[in-house]
Amino acid sequence: MAKEKKLNKNENTKAKSYKPKGKTEKAKKNTKPKNQRPKKPEKDPIKIIPLGGLGEIGKNITVYEYKDDILLVDCGMAFPDEDTPGIDIVIPDFSYLTKNREKIRGLVVTHGHEDHIGAIPYLLQELSVPIYATRLTIGLIEGKLKEHRLLNTAELHTVEPGQSVTFGVFSVEFIHVNHSIPDAVGFAIKTPMGTIVHTGDFKIDTTPIDDRVIDLARFAEIGKKGVLAMLADSTNAERPGYTMSERIVGESFSTLFKKAGKNRIIVATFSSNIHRIQQIIDEAVNCGRKVAVSGRSMLNVVSVAEKLGYLKVPENVLIDIELIKRYRPEDLVIITTGSQGEPLSALHRMAFSDHRNVEIVPDDMIIISATPIPGNEKLVSKVVNELMKRGANVVYEKMYDVHVSGHACQEELKLLISLVKPKYYIPLHGEQKHLYKHALLAQTMGIPKANTLISNIGEVIEVSKKSIRVTETVPSGRVLVDGLGVGDVGGVVLRDRKHLSDNGIIIINVAMDSATGEVVSGPDIVSRGFVYVKESEQLLNDVAVVAEDILENCYIHRVRDRNAIKLRLRDGVSKHLYEITHRSPMVLPIIMEV
Amino acid sequence: MAKEKKLNKNENTKAKSYKPKGKTEKAKKNTKPKNQRPKKPEKDPIKIIPLGGLGEIGKNITVYEYKDDILLVDCGMAFPDEDTPGIDIVIPDFSYLTKNREKIRGLVVTHGHEDHIGAIPYLLQELSVPIYATRLTIGLIEGKLKEHRLLNTAELHTVEPGQSVTFGVFSVEFIHVNHSIPDAVGFAIKTPMGTIVHTGDFKIDTTPIDDRVIDLARFAEIGKKGVLAMLADSTNAERPGYTMSERIVGESFSTLFKKAGKNRIIVATFSSNIHRIQQIIDEAVNCGRKVAVSGRSMLNVVSVAEKLGYLKVPENVLIDIELIKRYRPEDLVIITTGSQGEPLSALHRMAFSDHRNVEIVPDDMIIISATPIPGNEKLVSKVVNELMKRGANVVYEKMYDVHVSGHACQEELKLLISLVKPKYYIPLHGEQKHLYKHALLAQTMGIPKANTLISNIGEVIEVSKKSIRVTETVPSGRVLVDGLGVGDVGGVVLRDRKHLSDNGIIIINVAMDSATGEVVSGPDIVSRGFVYVKESEQLLNDVAVVAEDILENCYIHRVRDRNAIKLRLRDGVSKHLYEITHRSPMVLPIIMEV
Repeated sequence: MAKEKKLNKNENTKAKSYKPKGKTEKAKKNTKPKNQRPKKPEKDPIKIIPLGGLGEIGKNITVYEYKDDILLVDCGMAFPDEDTPGIDIVIPDFSYLTKNREKIRGLVVTHGHEDHIGAIPYLLQELSVPIYATRLTIGLIEGKLKEHRLLNTAELHTVEPGQSVTFGVFSVEFIHVNHSIPDAVGFAIKTPMGTIVHTGDFKIDTTPIDDRVIDLARFAEIGKKGVLAMLADSTNAERPGYTMSERIVGESFSTLFKKAGKNRIIVATFSSNIHRIQQIIDEAVNCGRKVAVSGRSMLNVVSVAEKLGYLKVPENVLIDIELIKRYRPEDLVIITTGSQGEPLSALHRMAFSDHRNVEIVPDDMIIISATPIPGNEKLVSKVVNELMKRGANVVYEKMYDVHVSGHACQEELKLLISLVKPKYYIPLHGEQKHLYKHALLAQTMGIPKANTLISNIGEVIEVSKKSIRVTETVPSGRVLVDGLGVGDVGGVVLRDRKHLSDNGIIIINVAMDSATGEVVSGPDIVSRGFVYVKESEQLLNDVAVVAEDILENCYIHRVRDRNAIKLRLRDGVSKHLYEITHRSPMVLPIIMEV
Repeated sequence: MAKEKKLNKNENTKAKSYKPKGKTEKAKKNTKPKNQRPKKPEKDPIKIIPLGGLGEIGKNITVYEYKDDILLVDCGMAFPDEDTPGIDIVIPDFSYLTKNREKIRGLVVTHGHEDHIGAIPYLLQELSVPIYATRLTIGLIEGKLKEHRLLNTAELHTVEPGQSVTFGVFSVEFIHVNHSIPDAVGFAIKTPMGTIVHTGDFKIDTTPIDDRVIDLARFAEIGKKGVLAMLADSTNAERPGYTMSERIVGESFSTLFKKAGKNRIIVATFSSNIHRIQQIIDEAVNCGRKVAVSGRSMLNVVSVAEKLGYLKVPENVLIDIELIKRYRPEDLVIITTGSQGEPLSALHRMAFSDHRNVEIVPDDMIIISATPIPGNEKLVSKVVNELMKRGANVVYEKMYDVHVSGHACQEELKLLISLVKPKYYIPLHGEQKHLYKHALLAQTMGIPKANTLISNIGEVIEVSKKSIRVTETVPSGRVLVDGLGVGDVGGVVLRDRKHLSDNGIIIINVAMDSATGEVVSGPDIVSRGFVYVKESEQLLNDVAVVAEDILENCYIHRVRDRNAIKLRLRDGVSKHLYEITHRSPMVLPIIMEV
């Protein structure tokens, strides 16, 4: 059903879009909002509201709003960190969108990475919105919606780079860019106020694996016509120079695969980096090796990418990971997940002898084709150390050029700015330090400081031809997903988890006569995560004595209010424990009425 | 009292030591074990047992053992990580030492960093051992012992580089090396089997701040006489080239202090890096600025270092942090802790507006003169972002040369190997990946692969003139210090903490007639760290119903055994919760007998 809907909509889309060729002619026909724009009463500024991705890494989502029309760009998730124990993923606060649901005309998506598509299922649980993206991106979104059983009700539209789609007053042109996943695009959003360029994640790769260089010519054309504002990827804004071409990684693979000699080769990388996977497969074919794939997301992406034609695998090259025992080490390349050292990933399991099919043996050549994402450094080191203990030859970090970034460094950002020549500049996607450096960079390119804006999530940025300013804020923030629960874990629960994790819990159980307030049974002391119970009997007995004294004291002094008694128990026992141990476990008195 | 003892012992030490000048002559007089060594029955190999610092970062401690004599080198702590929530510090397992306490002749310490001295108080709680170190190191150990109220009973000896001390069959010569703390030494340990060089942490700085270059000449002399084995610092063994001189940081300070203009300057660095602090003070004096110090450990080290003459501060330069309001921004430099983004540190408090004396204002120049230790990257980023939000001008990471490492890179390691020319090589101080790279490096210097040994903590390495091999293992590992408790938190408690931290706890309380087994009260459900209780009443009510059903079922089927009932409650409620929420909180049934 979804398929049918999609096809219909695609035709529909194409009818009102640019064709990949002859862009400019059709563009004129298509940009109704621009042509029909009444020049005079054009008073209202356009509103840009980042609901995620500023002052943080991930959960990218930006709202473009003009009167009764809202256009969404991206809808990503973020990963939890040490402040959010037990949380599975973090998604944006959608309350501004649910409040304005009738205004939302569509969601356009730049590319298929989790930090740009990961929150879509949660958005679709709140409201329905048609989604427009390129073919691979749609393929990955479909997989995601299927998992959440939302595919049948979703409205998905495939758009080719070069095409435009109209959303109320907005017309969005999809422009091809390079990134660490194929089929990434940036947008030129035509608004009643002028054109806004939204780059998405991008880099400039003049020798990409699929030979499709970022469409700089189109950015230049748009720039020539005048651009009101540009919102661009800040991830690498701190890094001088250029990001290297993906192709250099292939050269390293070629060198390393030769060095591997008679040994097995295992390469770990991001499952979404299809060009990287293509290069591994190409080099395996060159060396006459078979390729096996390990890890759920890797299997999933390889299958989607092959089906959609983004991955080209000659016949009889891919073999089932279950069958690798039939091949000699020198005939094998294994592509695996786990390049970030994730504890449940395939590479981690290999390192700790917990993988069903792959046991690391001395001289296995293991290539970690990735850089640790900030925060993952120790996880990756752990895996590297463990692999080395098993005698593997591990290539990691900067030993060879086995990884390149997918994001533009300073020279690339400057180049794009020089082509687009926007009046206003808003750095997107990054922590404060990235945004700050990015704004400085734009200023060195001649954009006045007053025209660059370091914004924050929830801020309403009003852009007119005369000014850029933040006028108000709307609800924004992070919503925590824990298992099936969305938003039912917040500050209090996290504080409790942190407290429990640092010092454990002491439970004081008392059964009390509900009429007289006499203690009928207890106090019984139970602890978890505090001390070895068997070796600390005395300590826990002492706690019971302290609790008994407090209870007796309450009874004598006619303290009958249960909350007052609990408070005294908590404070008294906490104080006692701190004196004895210098620790502060959570103390939880429970009174049962009998 | 400790002082007196120390002075006496110092004299004593000097009597049987080298004088700083005329080393070689006196060396011959002093090396009794070597000269008196009976050449023939020399059958027993020397045992080297690393009890910490291999396959891990920190808690460095190495045992040298020959028959009835044990010499200890260093006794450090390690910092906890995400696997040890709530733990304060990690120390080595001393059980091999307590078992062999009567053999232990002394502890020699290479330098005053926590990973080399931090576990000394815990060792002295177990056994008494005389400690020998250079003057600053002794000063820092004294401070530590004072905190633990052990100073009066400790036996501390100050040794000058160039001097030797005899410990049973061992004679240990202290050799000056460069590091990120003054007064660091390596050791030449003369044993009945030959000389062993133990470098400690070191780098080669030909232009150090105190003009005392590492004593390469002495290493060369020792090398010429023949060295049985060398144990060396692996921290930077992965890095090619040379570590830069500390002096280059001073040049960056000079540039940056000028750039600061009329604004305040705040520099965060490691409190133990006294040469760094000296350079900050020197540059402040150059610019006519006063210096205030913030952070407990910074105040402590500055005071010790100034008292001992390692820090030279002109009069009227240091001012109290409480008084900074009396000075103009352009007249101030603040030196602070917090270069690793530690949540309780002074810089962190400044960033989050929680510092009593320092409020960050726009254009404050803040220099983070350190590199994040692996695992601290996100903490540091957080602080940088927050400082930037307040408009500060933050210099961090690789923007200027505001930090250099204290550890030897590959070329320095190679240089020392070429001078010492050891027969056997044992990389120390590092994770597997560092040790592995270090061993490869030694092999490129002509040491046969069979003569390099990547070891593990607890392994007994036997070195003779003919071989190096691991013969057995002794107890080793990590002992966790939590508050006042040493070793009372282990695997079970940590697993509970992790479980509590991920999913929280659900407590099911039942009061039961101890005779009949009837439920008298409850089940009452209490949760912490699981869900917002107020918004999840239905969920918790359902849990109560599930628990009631189980209890009823037990009663009907005459299940009276309390443990069996608890097990059913735990399993039933866990299963129910997982179905509803896809989460697995700790479920803790408590039955009170009434």
